[in-house]
Amino acid sequence: MTVSHDFYGVISPVLTPFNDDGNPDAARFVAHAKWLLDDGCMGLAPFGTTGEANSLGLEERMGLLDALIDGGIEPKVLMPGTGLCALSDTVTVSQHAVERGCGGVMMLPPFYYKEVSDDGLFAYYSDVIERIGDARLKIYLYHIPPVAQVGLSVELVGRLIKAFPDTVVGLKDSSGDWDYTKALLDAYPGFTIFPGSEIFLLDGMRNGGAGCITATGNVNARMIRGVYDNWETEQADDLQAQITALRMAVQARPLIPMLKAIVAHYRNDPGWRSIRPPFLPLDATEAQAGITELMEQYGFELKAA
Amino acid sequence: MTVSHDFYGVISPVLTPFNDDGNPDAARFVAHAKWLLDDGCMGLAPFGTTGEANSLGLEERMGLLDALIDGGIEPKVLMPGTGLCALSDTVTVSQHAVERGCGGVMMLPPFYYKEVSDDGLFAYYSDVIERIGDARLKIYLYHIPPVAQVGLSVELVGRLIKAFPDTVVGLKDSSGDWDYTKALLDAYPGFTIFPGSEIFLLDGMRNGGAGCITATGNVNARMIRGVYDNWETEQADDLQAQITALRMAVQARPLIPMLKAIVAHYRNDPGWRSIRPPFLPLDATEAQAGITELMEQYGFELKAA
Repeated sequence: MTVSHDFYGVISPVLTPFNDDGNPDAARFVAHAKWLLDDGCMGLAPFGTTGEANSLGLEERMGLLDALIDGGIEPKVLMPGTGLCALSDTVTVSQHAVERGCGGVMMLPPFYYKEVSDDGLFAYYSDVIERIGDARLKIYLYHIPPVAQVGLSVELVGRLIKAFPDTVVGLKDSSGDWDYTKALLDAYPGFTIFPGSEIFLLDGMRNGGAGCITATGNVNARMIRGVYDNWETEQADDLQAQITALRMAVQARPLIPMLKAIVAHYRNDPGWRSIRPPFLPLDATEAQAGITELMEQYGFELKAA
Repeated sequence: MTVSHDFYGVISPVLTPFNDDGNPDAARFVAHAKWLLDDGCMGLAPFGTTGEANSLGLEERMGLLDALIDGGIEPKVLMPGTGLCALSDTVTVSQHAVERGCGGVMMLPPFYYKEVSDDGLFAYYSDVIERIGDARLKIYLYHIPPVAQVGLSVELVGRLIKAFPDTVVGLKDSSGDWDYTKALLDAYPGFTIFPGSEIFLLDGMRNGGAGCITATGNVNARMIRGVYDNWETEQADDLQAQITALRMAVQARPLIPMLKAIVAHYRNDPGWRSIRPPFLPLDATEAQAGITELMEQYGFELKAA
């Protein structure tokens, strides 16, 4: 099995800022992405669940990817989300990412129809890969059943790896189900597996994982990076306990609005709280209470941008 | 409350045929749509769940709508599905439908993110309506929680009617939950409510419903129309029992593949069985068994196209 190790370590999705008119703000987006790389992220996965990608239109999504690359971010560190409901839209967006030189794409299964078969999902990915027909395409499957509802069974992942060993190179596992993660790690050594939360970072590393791709990378990459860099040292468990506690505290409130509130706070830019419906921003008082709690109870340091 | 009664009676979604290359076949699509109108449908709702709309790309969806209208179908009888995950894509597709003169649009709530609030969904529909900013826009809400997972509460529907009485004029209810349908009918008299299956056609009519929008309209519009035309007569219950039995028999197999198999059979056109992943076509033997059963046990008459 040929595998890609282009991505590893701490990778962050990228929150998507919106202007007062409700449209994506490319300038703030690029600035935030650059700051994430400065803060310790080793790759970026824009247009995931955290980035409200499925609230972004096709053109908006491709326009923002262009903005990142034209803004000076090395495309090799980018793993944009390109999995849409419709096969043809997935092809359009993935092809664009490949043509722009992205190191990989993170691809949801088609998620409108429920209880679809593994054979149907296999046919979907096969069709997408065949239509793109480009050896540069590197797919990281995106397994997030709590949101997408449609997930990828361990068996299906194996079939895809076997059929497309040079293309299906990894998986982001946002199931929150360690048994599933462990089953994948055990079944497919060499396949690049990222738990979708830093809560599983150390357990993942000790079992052959590649790092993590985590929403809280948007505000806490440096501490998460500390676990990654020290996972084989004596401090590892203590460091892991700290980032786990902080993660739990952040996600005690609605995660994406809370992350945006934190960014708005440390950048002193209230516009960062904007979010696209069906989400709503966190009320300012509630956001402040959450931030105070993070600082006072968890020693969270908000870094200036 | 101002309401629209532009749509009523038996309305059928429109199955989407695909060519051998997996792309939508506009010619077959238009021919089928015209045949549905000849077969008794009083309106068409292309690009719903049955039409595999969420497996169609943005351009494919708009191209097929253009094909229907350019092919001679009166746009006033069309209620295309235009609800996508992303606010901006929903606006693009809805605006196109309005500009082409469609009588209405059928709009899913945004369905990627789960457990969103009524306030968030209200904000979504408000934003969509404001961005389109066209008095010709007539929205039929599309409630299908078994598939979309995100549904529309009775209270939310009331808030939308109150805020946008000239725009939010109806609802397709594919919940399969008569209690929900009845609650809507009781709460909002004058609002145009279509049960999403002919199983509820007679119950709906007796409680102020507008007819039904039903997948099986693709193969059985004439019999369903018989119930609609005779709902106040003595035969109504018997006629309803027949269409209910037939519907149950059709949906005993995977519904969309089975409907495509029936169309392939009566048109003597095996290409009609093609379906886009993540769905798979029904195996030919299984399809034939299903069709034989419908004919022999239910007296189903397959009409020549």
